Amino acid sequence: MHQFIENGTITTVNGFKAAGIHCGIKKRKKDLALIYSELPCSAAGTFTINKVKAAPLIISKKAISGKKPVKAVLVNSGNANACTGEEGHNDAKISQKHCAELLGIKPGEVLISSTGVIGKRLPMETFLSGIDKIIPHLSEEGGLDAAQAIMTTDKKMKSYALKVKLEGGTVKMGAIAKGSGMIMPNMATMLAFITTDAKISQVLLQKMLKKSVQNTFNKISVDGETSTNDMVVVLANGHSEIAVKSGSKNEAMFQEALDALCRKMARAIVSDGEGATKLVTINVNGAKSDKDANLVGKAVANSALVKTAIYGRDANWGRIMSAAGMSGASLDPTKMSISFDKVPILLAGYKIVLDEAAAFEVLSKEEFEININLEAGKKSSTWWTCDFTEEYIKINADYRT
Amino acid sequence: MHQFIENGTITTVNGFKAAGIHCGIKKRKKDLALIYSELPCSAAGTFTINKVKAAPLIISKKAISGKKPVKAVLVNSGNANACTGEEGHNDAKISQKHCAELLGIKPGEVLISSTGVIGKRLPMETFLSGIDKIIPHLSEEGGLDAAQAIMTTDKKMKSYALKVKLEGGTVKMGAIAKGSGMIMPNMATMLAFITTDAKISQVLLQKMLKKSVQNTFNKISVDGETSTNDMVVVLANGHSEIAVKSGSKNEAMFQEALDALCRKMARAIVSDGEGATKLVTINVNGAKSDKDANLVGKAVANSALVKTAIYGRDANWGRIMSAAGMSGASLDPTKMSISFDKVPILLAGYKIVLDEAAAFEVLSKEEFEININLEAGKKSSTWWTCDFTEEYIKINADYRT
Repeated sequence: MHQFIENGTITTVNGFKAAGIHCGIKKRKKDLALIYSELPCSAAGTFTINKVKAAPLIISKKAISGKKPVKAVLVNSGNANACTGEEGHNDAKISQKHCAELLGIKPGEVLISSTGVIGKRLPMETFLSGIDKIIPHLSEEGGLDAAQAIMTTDKKMKSYALKVKLEGGTVKMGAIAKGSGMIMPNMATMLAFITTDAKISQVLLQKMLKKSVQNTFNKISVDGETSTNDMVVVLANGHSEIAVKSGSKNEAMFQEALDALCRKMARAIVSDGEGATKLVTINVNGAKSDKDANLVGKAVANSALVKTAIYGRDANWGRIMSAAGMSGASLDPTKMSISFDKVPILLAGYKIVLDEAAAFEVLSKEEFEININLEAGKKSSTWWTCDFTEEYIKINADYRT
Repeated sequence: MHQFIENGTITTVNGFKAAGIHCGIKKRKKDLALIYSELPCSAAGTFTINKVKAAPLIISKKAISGKKPVKAVLVNSGNANACTGEEGHNDAKISQKHCAELLGIKPGEVLISSTGVIGKRLPMETFLSGIDKIIPHLSEEGGLDAAQAIMTTDKKMKSYALKVKLEGGTVKMGAIAKGSGMIMPNMATMLAFITTDAKISQVLLQKMLKKSVQNTFNKISVDGETSTNDMVVVLANGHSEIAVKSGSKNEAMFQEALDALCRKMARAIVSDGEGATKLVTINVNGAKSDKDANLVGKAVANSALVKTAIYGRDANWGRIMSAAGMSGASLDPTKMSISFDKVPILLAGYKIVLDEAAAFEVLSKEEFEININLEAGKKSSTWWTCDFTEEYIKINADYRT
């Protein structure tokens, strides 16, 4: 079983250094992060399915699909380097090469990632001198600085680590992530970087990451938007010399821990979604198929009317029914039931058992569950969403200007 | 060619009477409307595709699919009679029968429709005595009262009429509609009721209505939600004795006028969308297929980030690109171009020609166009959306309580 480590981060994992600094892409806040392992790492990644992809994402995706070892990840915030054309692609390439030269490694061993405004060229002079500046800051205590440097509209830093006892000994995993708008990842996600000292092949690591992402980052929604820059990357440097092999008990245990770490980040991203005041778990049960369970979960998680009702602490279950009805899932509304935490709201046959006071109490909590049973089969799906507030509008009406 | 009639409404059309009163379903505002034609009408309708359907909608849909003449439409606001089960269905049936008896016609000649809160039983005593009360108010001047009585969160009344010169003479069309949240109709729409004194068969009228709705009500989005109660109904009483027959010149002219009337209502609904301050037309051109053009138009019209940027008068074209990229349409981002009205923003090859001052001027207008060219083919699509404001959140956080 895994165990979370207090104040853990990517550098809690042996053999990883990191740094986070302000280089000048943003006005004041930290905007450049670097993760580094002297030992070559197996590197796996999942990437946005948006057809409009950022330049650094295209480059990193290609690097990972080559299945070759990786030693570093360079991330800037404040500029997405997306929709920047040939020039943007060159900018990304130049930064990758520059970073590799300073680290004394090959360009292909450096993954690159950007987040921020779309459609603006990176200020290259600032960026390159930032890379010069960040290298000496690399340290085994640098994880939290890196976590801060990748933030954009996030209010809370997302940094975690855990240890998991495998056959042969204990390995660690660390992670940092950023949200917090344009969030409805799909086969990919916002930015998250995971480190581990387990010894795993690239192919197995990729398979495990994909599985974890599917049930965590791909089940959250802040605003139904999927960014041009979303990526999750995991680096395994083998420092512990404890092997995780396909089909072994270790694989199952490592997967369970990786799932937990990704779930932690996914929930933190929703909870810190732009303007969000509540974290809501949506459990869809009794679906005819996995697809139906996901369609309903996604539709409810994305519904502006459900999300504003949550904000208003209004037990407006009719909006949940309406969202489910439009989800495309096969369902019979007369069989459906809804509860908030353990407070029943609607029973099958449109039997309304809503106790307004009890429902209001649940809806006043910072975290609660919406349970939807379709009574059409045995499949289920869990999604996470947040409420939709005036603050979201404010943040996004003012974002670029 | 058609010509709009100032202050026109459903009773501007000869042979139609209407009324709108307060009966007590809502606290103070008008909440009951009745439309009546002594002459039997061909009746066509389009209805929500939400799998969760309101009781009155199921009854009216069935009545229209029977293709039999209709003489009246009874509409209440303040209660949707949706998700109310067997009892709700009986309530709807009882109200239909009661209204028919008082009018001295058959129950099947009365269409019924409800809008308002989902999941609450109608206060039947209030409703039935309201029906008693409304009948004596029926008059040839009652259209505007009916238009007011169907409003929920609408700020502006939606009432129109036009005349169109056909071969044989001039016919009229009148219409009333209501929005203004839970708006992303699909093969159906919110509530809209259209009257005409042309003489048309039910089958042709249904075909023409479907065509009009497809390019008007089905191309708007306020919040990406499709209600349980959406319906558009058109009644043709033949009072003018001017016939519109399939394949005739009159069909084309009548279709053009019906399109114009539906477009007028669709735009008015978006313009008066919950919290909206702007009406934005999205023109997608150069798509490979109609489907692609619609996918891009719909994705941009529904994007919370595009809509908040419009509110903030922020020329954040990257969000338009991102929304298009996630739309599922086949596109090459490097070929795309974007303009706001006639101000170019992005040219092919990610050539950014954005003049912030000029863009800000367009975005400050109450109405403007976003033009997106995919350069992938010859298909196009026009959508309408509004901005997304704090006011939308306020309205919907407080809606039920």
